[in-house]
Amino acid sequence: MIKVSVMYPNRAGVRFDHEYYREKHLPLIKASMGEALKYYTIDKGLAGEAAGAPAYVAMCHLMCDSVETYRSAMGPHAGEIRGDIRNFTDVTPVTQVSEVVVENSSRPATPEPVKV
Amino acid sequence: MIKVSVMYPNRAGVRFDHEYYREKHLPLIKASMGEALKYYTIDKGLAGEAAGAPAYVAMCHLMCDSVETYRSAMGPHAGEIRGDIRNFTDVTPVTQVSEVVVENSSRPATPEPVKV
Repeated sequence: MIKVSVMYPNRAGVRFDHEYYREKHLPLIKASMGEALKYYTIDKGLAGEAAGAPAYVAMCHLMCDSVETYRSAMGPHAGEIRGDIRNFTDVTPVTQVSEVVVENSSRPATPEPVKV
Repeated sequence: MIKVSVMYPNRAGVRFDHEYYREKHLPLIKASMGEALKYYTIDKGLAGEAAGAPAYVAMCHLMCDSVETYRSAMGPHAGEIRGDIRNFTDVTPVTQVSEVVVENSSRPATPEPVKV
């Protein structure tokens, strides 16, 4: 499984509408991607190291089976989704694709394919 | 619930032992924090925007009930855990505390306390 992390850099005076992000933007991504999006998570930045400002004002993480699944599902909607960003923030996100090494340490991992 | 994200910046020639991170470092954090750590996730950076290098070579996210719970559990072990970092990497992580707005969009949210 892969995770696409979309991270919105924090700065003094940053504009970020967390309610719009939660109620409109992520539902738009979900509706656009359909079944290709297994699930998502949303984080709201509270603090950095030693209680300073957080590096990111908000993040979301989109979980998909593979990079190909993500690209196929997101591709046709990328313009619309990018265009919605100005409705909740004035910063440009940093995007990263990661392999999910451990999805949730409290739950058993997906079994490896049996080698024969 | 809160999430402590520990993000290891990527750079050309970065040293990062993903196996040690998964097999030793996160289990050390888990053993140190005990019940205060609800669960963790591990990400391995694959790519950034347009398939460039990822911003972070690896990340973990530690889930706790509150910032206070995290600080109390981590405090006595912070030195040992920080000291272990050199065993798997030569970069210094960026740490951020976030409020978990949506933990997993495919599962029902924790109910809000009933207002009376």
